[in-house]
Amino acid sequence: MVIVMKHNATADEITEVVANIESLGYKAHLSRGEERTIIGVIGDERPVEPERFELLPGVERAVRILHPFKLASRDFHPDDTLVRINGVSVGGREVVLMAGPCSVESREQLMETAAAVKAAGAQVLRGGAWKPRSSPYSFQGLGLKGLELLREAKAEYHLPIVTEVMSPQEVTLVAQYADVLQLGARNMNNFPLLAAVGEVQKPVLLKRGMMATVEELLMAAEYILSRGNQNVILCERGIRTFEPSTRNTFDINAIPVLKSLTHLPVIADPSHGTGKRELVTPIARAAVAAGADGLLIEVHNNPARALCDGAQSLTPEGFDALVADVRRVAEAVGRTVGLPCLA
Amino acid sequence: MVIVMKHNATADEITEVVANIESLGYKAHLSRGEERTIIGVIGDERPVEPERFELLPGVERAVRILHPFKLASRDFHPDDTLVRINGVSVGGREVVLMAGPCSVESREQLMETAAAVKAAGAQVLRGGAWKPRSSPYSFQGLGLKGLELLREAKAEYHLPIVTEVMSPQEVTLVAQYADVLQLGARNMNNFPLLAAVGEVQKPVLLKRGMMATVEELLMAAEYILSRGNQNVILCERGIRTFEPSTRNTFDINAIPVLKSLTHLPVIADPSHGTGKRELVTPIARAAVAAGADGLLIEVHNNPARALCDGAQSLTPEGFDALVADVRRVAEAVGRTVGLPCLA
Amino acid sequence: MVIVMKHNATADEITEVVANIESLGYKAHLSRGEERTIIGVIGDERPVEPERFELLPGVERAVRILHPFKLASRDFHPDDTLVRINGVSVGGREVVLMAGPCSVESREQLMETAAAVKAAGAQVLRGGAWKPRSSPYSFQGLGLKGLELLREAKAEYHLPIVTEVMSPQEVTLVAQYADVLQLGARNMNNFPLLAAVGEVQKPVLLKRGMMATVEELLMAAEYILSRGNQNVILCERGIRTFEPSTRNTFDINAIPVLKSLTHLPVIADPSHGTGKRELVTPIARAAVAAGADGLLIEVHNNPARALCDGAQSLTPEGFDALVADVRRVAEAVGRTVGLPCLA
Amino acid sequence: MVIVMKHNATADEITEVVANIESLGYKAHLSRGEERTIIGVIGDERPVEPERFELLPGVERAVRILHPFKLASRDFHPDDTLVRINGVSVGGREVVLMAGPCSVESREQLMETAAAVKAAGAQVLRGGAWKPRSSPYSFQGLGLKGLELLREAKAEYHLPIVTEVMSPQEVTLVAQYADVLQLGARNMNNFPLLAAVGEVQKPVLLKRGMMATVEELLMAAEYILSRGNQNVILCERGIRTFEPSTRNTFDINAIPVLKSLTHLPVIADPSHGTGKRELVTPIARAAVAAGADGLLIEVHNNPARALCDGAQSLTPEGFDALVADVRRVAEAVGRTVGLPCLA
Repeated sequence: MVIVMKHNATADEITEVVANIESLGYKAHLSRGEERTIIGVIGDERPVEPERFELLPGVERAVRILHPFKLASRDFHPDDTLVRINGVSVGGREVVLMAGPCSVESREQLMETAAAVKAAGAQVLRGGAWKPRSSPYSFQGLGLKGLELLREAKAEYHLPIVTEVMSPQEVTLVAQYADVLQLGARNMNNFPLLAAVGEVQKPVLLKRGMMATVEELLMAAEYILSRGNQNVILCERGIRTFEPSTRNTFDINAIPVLKSLTHLPVIADPSHGTGKRELVTPIARAAVAAGADGLLIEVHNNPARALCDGAQSLTPEGFDALVADVRRVAEAVGRTVGLPCLA
Repeated sequence: MVIVMKHNATADEITEVVANIESLGYKAHLSRGEERTIIGVIGDERPVEPERFELLPGVERAVRILHPFKLASRDFHPDDTLVRINGVSVGGREVVLMAGPCSVESREQLMETAAAVKAAGAQVLRGGAWKPRSSPYSFQGLGLKGLELLREAKAEYHLPIVTEVMSPQEVTLVAQYADVLQLGARNMNNFPLLAAVGEVQKPVLLKRGMMATVEELLMAAEYILSRGNQNVILCERGIRTFEPSTRNTFDINAIPVLKSLTHLPVIADPSHGTGKRELVTPIARAAVAAGADGLLIEVHNNPARALCDGAQSLTPEGFDALVADVRRVAEAVGRTVGLPCLA
Repeated sequence: MVIVMKHNATADEITEVVANIESLGYKAHLSRGEERTIIGVIGDERPVEPERFELLPGVERAVRILHPFKLASRDFHPDDTLVRINGVSVGGREVVLMAGPCSVESREQLMETAAAVKAAGAQVLRGGAWKPRSSPYSFQGLGLKGLELLREAKAEYHLPIVTEVMSPQEVTLVAQYADVLQLGARNMNNFPLLAAVGEVQKPVLLKRGMMATVEELLMAAEYILSRGNQNVILCERGIRTFEPSTRNTFDINAIPVLKSLTHLPVIADPSHGTGKRELVTPIARAAVAAGADGLLIEVHNNPARALCDGAQSLTPEGFDALVADVRRVAEAVGRTVGLPCLA
Repeated sequence: MVIVMKHNATADEITEVVANIESLGYKAHLSRGEERTIIGVIGDERPVEPERFELLPGVERAVRILHPFKLASRDFHPDDTLVRINGVSVGGREVVLMAGPCSVESREQLMETAAAVKAAGAQVLRGGAWKPRSSPYSFQGLGLKGLELLREAKAEYHLPIVTEVMSPQEVTLVAQYADVLQLGARNMNNFPLLAAVGEVQKPVLLKRGMMATVEELLMAAEYILSRGNQNVILCERGIRTFEPSTRNTFDINAIPVLKSLTHLPVIADPSHGTGKRELVTPIARAAVAAGADGLLIEVHNNPARALCDGAQSLTPEGFDALVADVRRVAEAVGRTVGLPCLA
């Protein structure tokens, strides 16, 4: 950390800041500039917040120099982490496709969709049993019934399952059904939930909050990692900006930024990242071109009847076309995509 | 809702949209314009999402006309709601001051701060027992011990308590100690938590998410109201923008906007809304000038030793000065502020 | 400036950075931390951009410590600047009211509005002759005819005139008619225009760009000041955020932030800051409560017939009420507002 | 346009709105819903602003149904526009590469860079003669001298030139040297400048403002088109958001959104869209994967000596690698990229 003194700071004020730094177990290093004195804090600054120094008399600003995350950082762990979901590895050369409906609505809907995405080349089935909805009057998911249908689809189509968990007390239950626990964007800063999924050994798919910076996403991952669960997959799914023509602004920059800052795998959700069906395939191609390790795609056997996110769900035919497109781009950047399955 | 057809939509496509509207129990009303046909959906549109129509062939856009909230709206409930916290009414002529430390850190810290804010004129004591922190390495609060200290301070200083609850399974416990349950900005869209506080009859202080629209804040309130708890106080605490010179951008516009859209009381948190101690008082004055029904202010007996939010905490003397300033502004806009207490 | 080296930076890389700093005429000061070496740049860093150091091998980040503006800063010029507009001083104890129509539309419209705002207590008349409009199909202003009407209104009502100038080649012409040259939000980064108004000695009203930070606003002022014109009035008029319920988000925090960073007067435009007539008065009160030195208000003798910004224009009666409200708040914070004029 | 009446609007208020619509030459169409009456405005609504209706008594909201642009829209002009720059077509099957330094700094710098980008496969040379800089103390460009060097480079390397024009009175001069007139992000809403470039017949490269919506970008293009110049190339270059890890957030969604809304070619500037050299190539690949018609890339023969934008400039070797990468992605999406030139 670097502490910048005000241009009129007194010698006593500087002395007090130094004493304060030393009382916390750090060493202080002074640089006297032409207009300001700058004081470096020597030691692992992560546990200390810059604001505490900004309260001392004569201090203008304190600036953190290190990123506040450690376990998630590539400095700490230089090699790529591979997260294994049953037989599937996320974070390696293969771009992993996860697809399925926004929410599980019925056996027929889920089975038809699962069959279609399996045939097209998906390796993981997604589907929500509990749904975070902005209106209390919207469909809230089938709950436990949804989990049971997911288990049935898994058995039938040999697809591991990713599904959302919304509160700490449901983690144990959902972990009995799911192969990957999803934390939704609205829960990225739900700290009791982050702690709870950090205590199990299931892979976690952690979605970036719509208002979260890249650094905050990595701090949320740090919560999980620091509890002992190292199997975290990050997911860029669009951020909120002033632009109204799409549901979110897909932050394509975040993909290479994350890949350089962290060893964790990074996947992309172009369905939420755009909110419009016709944009999903171009943005899926772009995400893979930028280095994404996988894609999370909403597919519905009949989007016009979907109880949620119909507008951004692909039809099975649309998903077939997406996979073909994405495979060509993946190969252009030295990656692979699983072949369609002739189950 | 209004459905705008594409300029080249066919008669068959229009017929299908009309059939779809009627199958949902609504009536359809056609307007044939020069370039487009527009179809009005007649009936209570709240349960239906515009996106479902955007999937039909020939549809360009569907636009919601009504706000999606009902119980929270002033149309539905024209008179101001007064939320009573023990003897204190929020939402009436008096501007209610709630103050105290960010987190409860020790008996001495809490008692000294409580004594000071009581003396200065505060009517409610704030203090966190569990703290949502962006780093797993930061102080996370005293937990149950914190609740017990709050109970002690309440008994000593006759101040009702507002404290945060972070997960659904803690609601019952926290409600035994708190007079007002606070939902923090990061939990505004924690739907299981909203539902849980909707089931108790304690007042709820609902903070706006840092990237939530005014409408989304009202939908979060709707979750609570629709479960049966009518005692909701809304709190503007700043939103996230591109401006780096303050921690958040306090959305002063939201105060009169909320007062016109809803009957619920609206208070302001200039501590989080600015993040800097020297800005708290000017923004507190501004919030009251714009019509806020109360203020939530971080005060610490020794901010330089605070374990969280020290940079935005006022000293007891600073809070005294704030109260004096705010009282003059309140009177200028026809409101009152409680007098300093000579306990 | 502080340069943070990568944690694996070599001694040679550090030596090269030091050599680079010295080649620019600065001194370098090393702090060797546990994980990183940090190098302070000693000297006036303003002319150097941090990015140039980020290109050197082994450098992780370069952080500016000083604000990049100098002439605009309170460090450089501690006392408040008073900008004089004919007999009116902006930046002193009196809160100055500037009011009038968005655009000059006709003699009748301008004269009626000028008479009304004068009577209510305004001290400066605003009105646009050339209008920046987002559509080429919208009314673009009366041009020179508008300037002549403004001159006529000035003579009739003894009100100095503020009007917008949109391109460098028009500065000389507009300066013959205007007492204050307004630079609109869209032109805050129009550098040739900033340079041109820096060459004349008329007061300049510089509006914050809707996408500009406080620091960028002060850098725009710096352009004007560095050309020799010291008469700059800053204007907060709302920024663009994700919130759709208002036209802009009025950044109330910016008022006390600017007052602490700069000696220049700061006024507020709640008409653009909200975009809705019913919000103008509450936000005007808030701006004055937060420390604004003046207000810029759109008033129209018949808003429903306005050719631009009708939705945010007050009627003369609405403006009367605003002035009464604002006067009470101004007095509550130790300021004054001119009395209604019995012309 | 659709006008939504308040739920308590009277019959007289409805009648007045209808009369107002008809007085403007439109037809009105009423839909009486359960809670509201909605009035459709039949006719070309583009010249009318919704706000004018929101002032009428009883009106809650007026919503525009059509996009406000016409000449730029694909509805109006369904086929792709090809913009020809000397022998090069932008908007066809080939992805066009435009590259060169941020600013022209010297003959040596420009010639070396031009030689390098030509050899790598670029078809257009970029370089700034006048530079918009946020600080008055930064390098402002060589001006006319820069234009002359660009002409020399064009003659030597047979590369057409794109360079920025910053004020209306310089359009004629710059047009004598440039093959494409660039309007920078800060000037997207400089309406006198848009009008001026609309009067010449040179191609215009119009960059999206950092806080402009897609619709506002198309309205800026409409200004140029409506003056008679049909040769407009749009450029996505990143928008301003809350994310601090990159200079801007490259809005990848905007590429397919623009391609569907307009017939004009759309190129991408990943240099400004990221601000960091190591991100330029991944985002260039992504932009082409999403459908961009070309790329604008900053290349410098010695970025560490660059007088502006060094941190985001590629070296010649870096640009060679980018071209190879981009060519593979372009081919994967059915496009081509010119071969390296063995000049």
